[in-house]
Amino acid sequence: MFSERLKRLLVLLSRLPGVGEKTAARYALFLLAADESLSRELGAEIAALRDRVAPCSRCNNLADRPEDGGAALCAICTDNKRDASILCVVGRVQDLFAIERAGTMRGRYFVLGRLLSPLEGVGPDELPMDKLLTLIERERVREVIVATPPSVDGEATALLLKREIAPRGLRLTRIASGVPHGGDLEYADPITMGRALAGRQEL
Amino acid sequence: MFSERLKRLLVLLSRLPGVGEKTAARYALFLLAADESLSRELGAEIAALRDRVAPCSRCNNLADRPEDGGAALCAICTDNKRDASILCVVGRVQDLFAIERAGTMRGRYFVLGRLLSPLEGVGPDELPMDKLLTLIERERVREVIVATPPSVDGEATALLLKREIAPRGLRLTRIASGVPHGGDLEYADPITMGRALAGRQEL
Repeated sequence: MFSERLKRLLVLLSRLPGVGEKTAARYALFLLAADESLSRELGAEIAALRDRVAPCSRCNNLADRPEDGGAALCAICTDNKRDASILCVVGRVQDLFAIERAGTMRGRYFVLGRLLSPLEGVGPDELPMDKLLTLIERERVREVIVATPPSVDGEATALLLKREIAPRGLRLTRIASGVPHGGDLEYADPITMGRALAGRQEL
Repeated sequence: MFSERLKRLLVLLSRLPGVGEKTAARYALFLLAADESLSRELGAEIAALRDRVAPCSRCNNLADRPEDGGAALCAICTDNKRDASILCVVGRVQDLFAIERAGTMRGRYFVLGRLLSPLEGVGPDELPMDKLLTLIERERVREVIVATPPSVDGEATALLLKREIAPRGLRLTRIASGVPHGGDLEYADPITMGRALAGRQEL
């Protein structure tokens, strides 16, 4: 029932995460009805994405690839108002975005790209520890905030970071785990509730 | 926190229906991690969409635009196995797709493109009635199935179609409205339940 061209587009759109046949058709029909410039510009941006966006050479966040072929540096690493003595270590770029949305992180970041995962066979050698340790040394970092997720892999990664960084004598902290804002105590799972209790602070 | 290029892409992606900042970021990060050919091919298809897909000159369904600049004809209108004597009239291309998914429609279609809507100021003159009536005449249609939605505008359109088509002496039918398959009678709204009762058939 679909035109050949439309079929091709729907197959490609369906490869996006969470997009099935119906959502793909919804996007395609919207693009066919919307201002023609939208499909032209969106298509051009997607097609050129991999040429124009690259990992930041310092922190692995996403950055504009310089046209002169030099090393990419992200908007946070080039922001002089950031406190270079505070370094927040995250697993994925998505996690960096989530922390930035909170708007209270004054320091810089380092994106590991993956977490330690014994179950999936990801060992310490597959994490960019040398790059991280060199950066800590070079930039005279005074506090490392470990912001890996409160999951099995995230905690294993936090322990590895502790083993490597603690001997260097700088401040090493871990983001708090507990009952989320607006959350109902009644529905908190036992582990989260246990952490909320263990991590209690003076009122 | 985003690179300039990424920001541009996120703004464009966010214009798709139901896509907010987070979903846009999810799509962009997926495209940055997936095989590079996906972003190139998807981008190229989207950019060229409006050049390659056009309304079918016979029924207004979506069709491949012929490279020689001739009139576009959709896959259904060019399918000789379809029974040209049965014509199903729908409001939107999405509705045609939904009927095709049921897999039981042997005839062809005509897409009105919009419904009669007194509230939004869409009158009979804005519907392609002449094109529809010419098609019915030319192709010797024997049954017209009115498949506009069971909404106020859909019913108004169905009445308009009845007024125009009934005097021509061919069979004119309307798709059934009632309790959906798998639906729980307890949660059916009163209008749907009323229609299910009024449209009852011999067991």
